[in-house]
Amino acid sequence: MQHQKRIRDYGVQIGRLKTGQHNAISDVKGVTVGHVTLSKGSMQTGVTAILPHPGNLFREKLIASCHVINGFGKTMGTIQMQELGVIETPIVLTNTLSIGTAADAVIQYTMERNPEIGRSTGTVNPVIGECNDMLLNDIRAQYVTKEHVFQAIHNASTEFEEGSVGAGTGMLCYSLKGGIGTSSRTFQLDHGTYTIGALVLSNFGILSDLMINGRMIGRELKEALLQSWEEKDKGSIMIIIATDLPVSERQLNRIIKRSVAALSRTGSIITHGSGEIVIGFSTATRIPHTKPDDCLSIPVIHEEDMDTAFRAVVEAVEEAVLNSLVTATHVMGRDDNNRPAFKDLLDQFHIEL
Amino acid sequence: MQHQKRIRDYGVQIGRLKTGQHNAISDVKGVTVGHVTLSKGSMQTGVTAILPHPGNLFREKLIASCHVINGFGKTMGTIQMQELGVIETPIVLTNTLSIGTAADAVIQYTMERNPEIGRSTGTVNPVIGECNDMLLNDIRAQYVTKEHVFQAIHNASTEFEEGSVGAGTGMLCYSLKGGIGTSSRTFQLDHGTYTIGALVLSNFGILSDLMINGRMIGRELKEALLQSWEEKDKGSIMIIIATDLPVSERQLNRIIKRSVAALSRTGSIITHGSGEIVIGFSTATRIPHTKPDDCLSIPVIHEEDMDTAFRAVVEAVEEAVLNSLVTATHVMGRDDNNRPAFKDLLDQFHIEL
Amino acid sequence: MQHQKRIRDYGVQIGRLKTGQHNAISDVKGVTVGHVTLSKGSMQTGVTAILPHPGNLFREKLIASCHVINGFGKTMGTIQMQELGVIETPIVLTNTLSIGTAADAVIQYTMERNPEIGRSTGTVNPVIGECNDMLLNDIRAQYVTKEHVFQAIHNASTEFEEGSVGAGTGMLCYSLKGGIGTSSRTFQLDHGTYTIGALVLSNFGILSDLMINGRMIGRELKEALLQSWEEKDKGSIMIIIATDLPVSERQLNRIIKRSVAALSRTGSIITHGSGEIVIGFSTATRIPHTKPDDCLSIPVIHEEDMDTAFRAVVEAVEEAVLNSLVTATHVMGRDDNNRPAFKDLLDQFHIEL
Amino acid sequence: MQHQKRIRDYGVQIGRLKTGQHNAISDVKGVTVGHVTLSKGSMQTGVTAILPHPGNLFREKLIASCHVINGFGKTMGTIQMQELGVIETPIVLTNTLSIGTAADAVIQYTMERNPEIGRSTGTVNPVIGECNDMLLNDIRAQYVTKEHVFQAIHNASTEFEEGSVGAGTGMLCYSLKGGIGTSSRTFQLDHGTYTIGALVLSNFGILSDLMINGRMIGRELKEALLQSWEEKDKGSIMIIIATDLPVSERQLNRIIKRSVAALSRTGSIITHGSGEIVIGFSTATRIPHTKPDDCLSIPVIHEEDMDTAFRAVVEAVEEAVLNSLVTATHVMGRDDNNRPAFKDLLDQFHIEL
Repeated sequence: MQHQKRIRDYGVQIGRLKTGQHNAISDVKGVTVGHVTLSKGSMQTGVTAILPHPGNLFREKLIASCHVINGFGKTMGTIQMQELGVIETPIVLTNTLSIGTAADAVIQYTMERNPEIGRSTGTVNPVIGECNDMLLNDIRAQYVTKEHVFQAIHNASTEFEEGSVGAGTGMLCYSLKGGIGTSSRTFQLDHGTYTIGALVLSNFGILSDLMINGRMIGRELKEALLQSWEEKDKGSIMIIIATDLPVSERQLNRIIKRSVAALSRTGSIITHGSGEIVIGFSTATRIPHTKPDDCLSIPVIHEEDMDTAFRAVVEAVEEAVLNSLVTATHVMGRDDNNRPAFKDLLDQFHIEL
Repeated sequence: MQHQKRIRDYGVQIGRLKTGQHNAISDVKGVTVGHVTLSKGSMQTGVTAILPHPGNLFREKLIASCHVINGFGKTMGTIQMQELGVIETPIVLTNTLSIGTAADAVIQYTMERNPEIGRSTGTVNPVIGECNDMLLNDIRAQYVTKEHVFQAIHNASTEFEEGSVGAGTGMLCYSLKGGIGTSSRTFQLDHGTYTIGALVLSNFGILSDLMINGRMIGRELKEALLQSWEEKDKGSIMIIIATDLPVSERQLNRIIKRSVAALSRTGSIITHGSGEIVIGFSTATRIPHTKPDDCLSIPVIHEEDMDTAFRAVVEAVEEAVLNSLVTATHVMGRDDNNRPAFKDLLDQFHIEL
Repeated sequence: MQHQKRIRDYGVQIGRLKTGQHNAISDVKGVTVGHVTLSKGSMQTGVTAILPHPGNLFREKLIASCHVINGFGKTMGTIQMQELGVIETPIVLTNTLSIGTAADAVIQYTMERNPEIGRSTGTVNPVIGECNDMLLNDIRAQYVTKEHVFQAIHNASTEFEEGSVGAGTGMLCYSLKGGIGTSSRTFQLDHGTYTIGALVLSNFGILSDLMINGRMIGRELKEALLQSWEEKDKGSIMIIIATDLPVSERQLNRIIKRSVAALSRTGSIITHGSGEIVIGFSTATRIPHTKPDDCLSIPVIHEEDMDTAFRAVVEAVEEAVLNSLVTATHVMGRDDNNRPAFKDLLDQFHIEL
Repeated sequence: MQHQKRIRDYGVQIGRLKTGQHNAISDVKGVTVGHVTLSKGSMQTGVTAILPHPGNLFREKLIASCHVINGFGKTMGTIQMQELGVIETPIVLTNTLSIGTAADAVIQYTMERNPEIGRSTGTVNPVIGECNDMLLNDIRAQYVTKEHVFQAIHNASTEFEEGSVGAGTGMLCYSLKGGIGTSSRTFQLDHGTYTIGALVLSNFGILSDLMINGRMIGRELKEALLQSWEEKDKGSIMIIIATDLPVSERQLNRIIKRSVAALSRTGSIITHGSGEIVIGFSTATRIPHTKPDDCLSIPVIHEEDMDTAFRAVVEAVEEAVLNSLVTATHVMGRDDNNRPAFKDLLDQFHIEL
């Protein structure tokens, strides 16, 4: 994250809470992120993998939840996550038409590490998110292979790039170049210090709606630019929330639901064509695959402590979206389609944030 | 429960698990039930109150959940129960057009015991369930008063009657007289012995569908009876599930959802006009109203232990419905409307179960 | 609406779409609103009734839907609305501890107009919303009577007041005086011109979060004010959406869900203690209570036309919240509790919007 | 369907409504079903495709809905189906670990027929259902290829086999051999004659629970059989409902939800490990992909006609499950694992149904 110029480096401060050490989802201990970027000619796509903890996630699951802001999307794995309240695979993000391949890869990855799957125990629930990168990427070519998914998982690290990388390679945000962004917040409760981190794959919104900390900068840019594009949002956003806060799946769901406020603060009206889905997990408790003799004991915060978590997730998601926007670089894609990078426009029109 | 002839006393055994000591919801330690019965002429209605524990429920809440099988009903308090995962008042059952009065009474009851409500803390979420007893009861007269609700709560005991009592006074079940029924199951897991209890306010179904342990007895009765009624189900069923099993609200929701299987086993196709709503709570953990310094610690079973709980709830609800049916006595109500009592028909037609 | 100074009169323009004629929910033909205001000493509460159409709503229902943004609330009638997709009574708003009384009043009101209820047809599903006005109002006194509800329904008109009136009398918004606000938007589709109107009962948020059109005015005010209050949100907001757009209940649900974006744009992070519930209806189609011989035919827009409706609802709700804030007048309530009126602060500190 | 001995051929009649002409889901005009069966040694799996209408489903969508009875499953495509209320691809059923491949195949199939996907219009939402056939099939080998999916779609016909075929090849039901089953019901309303058809992929339940028309035949069989198996349900059931009834997506959802009653009537308690998911569609209205100039007009039944549809779906699903059971043939699979065919047991123990 360090070498890229992020929204804070432009002097924009989102909210009032402190960020984690790297201002990234990986500030939640154990969380890592890996990319594979496929960028050449009309191939502008990729894979991003989020690993919730470094161990065997199938055998030691984490409490998880998902929330559908707008369901025009194809995310896989949510039915079981809601029923059982856990996640048991890495989360893999890619383009919409590669979800089958990604699912197949995550199944194979998990089978290899767990030979009892399909033999002495049941199957596995792959969690795959997607956005549609068809403007820049020849999405019909289905460039992503299982190997790319394995590689993205293999690349996972606490340090990772933002912008036009991984699954974000061909994505658009507010009609500009979008992609991967991340941010985090830490806060203190009576019983400890906790972190909430967000990672987004941004691909939503139309330029005239873009707002940064209350400034209607989308309208400014639209006036500055001579050219204009058909502004019809066929996008999506995937939002991944990680936390070390001890929460039940119900509480986690309440927290991740607040992501929508963050999108609104960047100007979104949550358009029809934009599949907007949030997946969250807590690293505070590991749920064993194999039944122990005793009851499990789940530490959870009191509901009165929720507001701090709500504020943290709203701030982290808002800043993650802005980071995705401001770190994204120009991409010339399919049929010479392209959209400006936000940071290039700031330079071109001498705009200070 | 002891002095009434229940379905087991007819030789019918539902399922394979053992019942609790009294085969009643009050086998879950701390749970009590109270009735007020209003039965005179065209007034055939009443109130039934279920108290989840004997303490101050507002200050020490219980994990709770609800499930809507068919939403043609007016149950109050479910939105907050789902959001916060707790119950903080007694559950009061009455006729459909008395829910306002019942809500008002539960609010007053809770305010009296908690002077800080509306002053130093927030408000209270009354939980009210209802069925429509309009055939036997002059429901438009709204006979139920707040005093009746207070009295039902006051009457709460581990011993209580079934059949044409309390909120069940004017209810119908499978076109026969219905009302209040209860049952319970106990079972052993590695870490302890647990109980699931059910109480129903039965007011659903049409005679020709009635099935007892696989026997299509409704059709038999329909043929035996010379008279026949317009069989249009405008009923409902309220199902209350109590357990001492340590569960999260998600797990509790999975358990109470299985109630629908019990209704089906008595012959129901879950008709359009029948509001069918389940409310469940667990006495295993008390959630304090006031935030403590530390995290809460919630004991929960491993998901692999769920099937036993599922079987227990299905059996208990099925038997509770049959108990409501077989203990109900004949009621002559509004405009001389009436429906036979099941047990009278068994006598009349010399039917052995 | 005309004689009160509204947010547009301060030069603030929300969004880009045109307002309806009166910039009010009553711009949707047939919709009327009535208040009863109870303001004296520690009695600072009231009732607001929204009538979806001027006819017999029980016999000619409207397609309706509801959405729970945050479920810390006691709204009644939502289960049946979601199951059957219709509304059949006026919507009544009042304080939290008066919902029982309000429900009882709406039941009685509907019974009087429909003598077949509880006789030849079933019961009725009252729709009651609430917020907690305990700071200014002695909410424990339960001042609201059934007569007040009848009166509010009787008072319903296309012209109605905003601010500290009706159910809004004792409400707070962003730690300032809140209450009733309304706004509307019109827009053209290929097949006609349509209106979406919003009415809010605002009682949520903390001062430091307040944002108007991107301006963090809450922070400005907080700094200007010497005194400060414990900023803990125990509020709520009820949002009522009316439209003449031909929509299915699924489409209507998608539209009203976007209300959350409006709250976020005024600065909200959707706090734990704030019950936030949206109820919407469409006047485009009347659903007869009595089954006709033929199928019904429901006109609906194509999904591709949704974005315009989404933008309209976000703008209308945002402006309705701001109208509730800027029209509210100072109220001295229980124990001399009070919160400043926003417009008084604008005067006091010479702030221009 | 004709040449196989079905449950009616054993003298068992489920319910009271009439079946359609072939007593199959394909009695709903336009619906076809195709299988590919992979049965050799430890490869005991396959693919079943349901085509909702013979035209271009992507361009002419159907109103659709899904319902999760128990969410321990990996069905894909449900998020978008619920949001938009339509289905736009064939429904493909296969084994759990082949869902990625199946999704990829359906994407490719739809792209080939719609070159505008990913170019001038958005992407496509594949609908894939699954059950776990790991006992008989070496599910880890992932035998299913995209070609198998194409072939299953190509094979679709109004006439198709039941039992150990297609996706049902390796499935178990009530600890016996299960698989594909189908049934239908027709009924008359004031405005026309309508059909509801069901197809199931049965893979759930334990032997001792099996019930046929009220007879606890599972217990009888368990006593008759000398051997016994570990009865732990890791199964699932996919239920597909087709109808020509004019319904909204809300009404369709109410109808398909009743499927759970059918499962219960065959003895199920809806076990933890069994993912049970229902997908339904109506052929009554085609929803164009491309926006027309005018509003759409959706014919829908009045809610009072629901009960007939409810009864039809319960009967059809119950009979479909029993057909899957009684038509299934013995399969020797992975590691010589096998479970008896129900019909073989009937012969062996001279049991009459």
